[in-house]
Amino acid sequence: MPMILYELCGRDPERVFSPHCWKARMALAHKGLAYETRPTPFTKIPEIAAGFSKTVPVLDDDGTLVRESFDIALHLERTFPDRPSLFGGPGGEAMARFVERWTQFGVQGPLMRLIVADIHSVLDDENQRYFRESREARLGARLEDVQAGREDRLAAFRETLRPLREMLAMQPFIGGDGPLFPDYIVFGALQWARVVSPFKLLADDDPVATWFGRLLALHDGLAAKAKAAA
Amino acid sequence: MPMILYELCGRDPERVFSPHCWKARMALAHKGLAYETRPTPFTKIPEIAAGFSKTVPVLDDDGTLVRESFDIALHLERTFPDRPSLFGGPGGEAMARFVERWTQFGVQGPLMRLIVADIHSVLDDENQRYFRESREARLGARLEDVQAGREDRLAAFRETLRPLREMLAMQPFIGGDGPLFPDYIVFGALQWARVVSPFKLLADDDPVATWFGRLLALHDGLAAKAKAAA
Repeated sequence: MPMILYELCGRDPERVFSPHCWKARMALAHKGLAYETRPTPFTKIPEIAAGFSKTVPVLDDDGTLVRESFDIALHLERTFPDRPSLFGGPGGEAMARFVERWTQFGVQGPLMRLIVADIHSVLDDENQRYFRESREARLGARLEDVQAGREDRLAAFRETLRPLREMLAMQPFIGGDGPLFPDYIVFGALQWARVVSPFKLLADDDPVATWFGRLLALHDGLAAKAKAAA
Repeated sequence: MPMILYELCGRDPERVFSPHCWKARMALAHKGLAYETRPTPFTKIPEIAAGFSKTVPVLDDDGTLVRESFDIALHLERTFPDRPSLFGGPGGEAMARFVERWTQFGVQGPLMRLIVADIHSVLDDENQRYFRESREARLGARLEDVQAGREDRLAAFRETLRPLREMLAMQPFIGGDGPLFPDYIVFGALQWARVVSPFKLLADDDPVATWFGRLLALHDGLAAKAKAAA
């Protein structure tokens, strides 16, 4: 039975935008594994596998259910050890956790505030209601007010990417000569923005933009082909 | 012939304070390797091995000279593959570069501005002159003015450590269950401050402080025993 990946989508089921789902997608592609996608809006997540998870991605590997993108990557690494490694050994598995926490709090947090109203705009009516209510409670402000003035926060956002930018002067991927799961972790955040928002995040001559382009092209252009914002 | 490690010192040769030298020290101890230390003030670095390097640490491994702490760690990993690994595989070697760049620009940059006058205070007269002239040119201000008001910047500094703090909720070391070279990378920055400055950087209940304490205790308390600021 092929694997099934439950992924977050907007009004258009082809607009798959969650950063965490992109990590899982890229991990499956890295391992060369076929899977069926099940685009799922926020409000349908509780229906996946009888309420197995409050979040997506959820991977159904022939009846074995796995939630959380990092745990999905670990599951694939353990289950398919002879396919290309996602971590490059135990040290890589451990250090990828650091990259993940850096991305979550250092990158995705500020990025959310640049695109949150754009996320809302790609959802259907029911999911717009859910998203506005839950996110405005969390952020303590209207989505549009959070996003407003994002041009003024762009330089600070680009500065948060400096460790990656400096590293890219030394090697082409976080994984070294080729991509590993931590590349997909950071990629997921930027692809999230690319899919929902027309806001230009990176200068064209930014080494991070060049690296992002390399990631978009991987695996037969899997991520490049995805429906993106105009 | 035992290895020789050239390390930066203050007026007191026992006050070895460079973050990069601490990375090399901890890497040698991790591998269980004996070495002789050669404490070296800034102004004597050009005399090491006929001007081999503009910076310390420099490792002399039986005539093979290696500069830069990361390259020293890689040299030890290649030369002593049967001793405890510093990287846990090729993925770890690559990802440690990201941790290094994060530490250099995300942690050490702001930390320098909290302790730069304290660094000056541990140097001898000749090195105080060198340090003041070179650092004030780089920082564009008097050392004392850069450091002034550090209490007001402490909360922001602690926030820069958030990715590490969040990761420590998941595993005890950046290396996972045990320390690897990236732990020593971040440790080096905090030990730099501990050795030169009485300024209290971390709250006692900060998980980063607990992790730092674990690092101080490693290798028979190598780093805990070092001469620290009052």
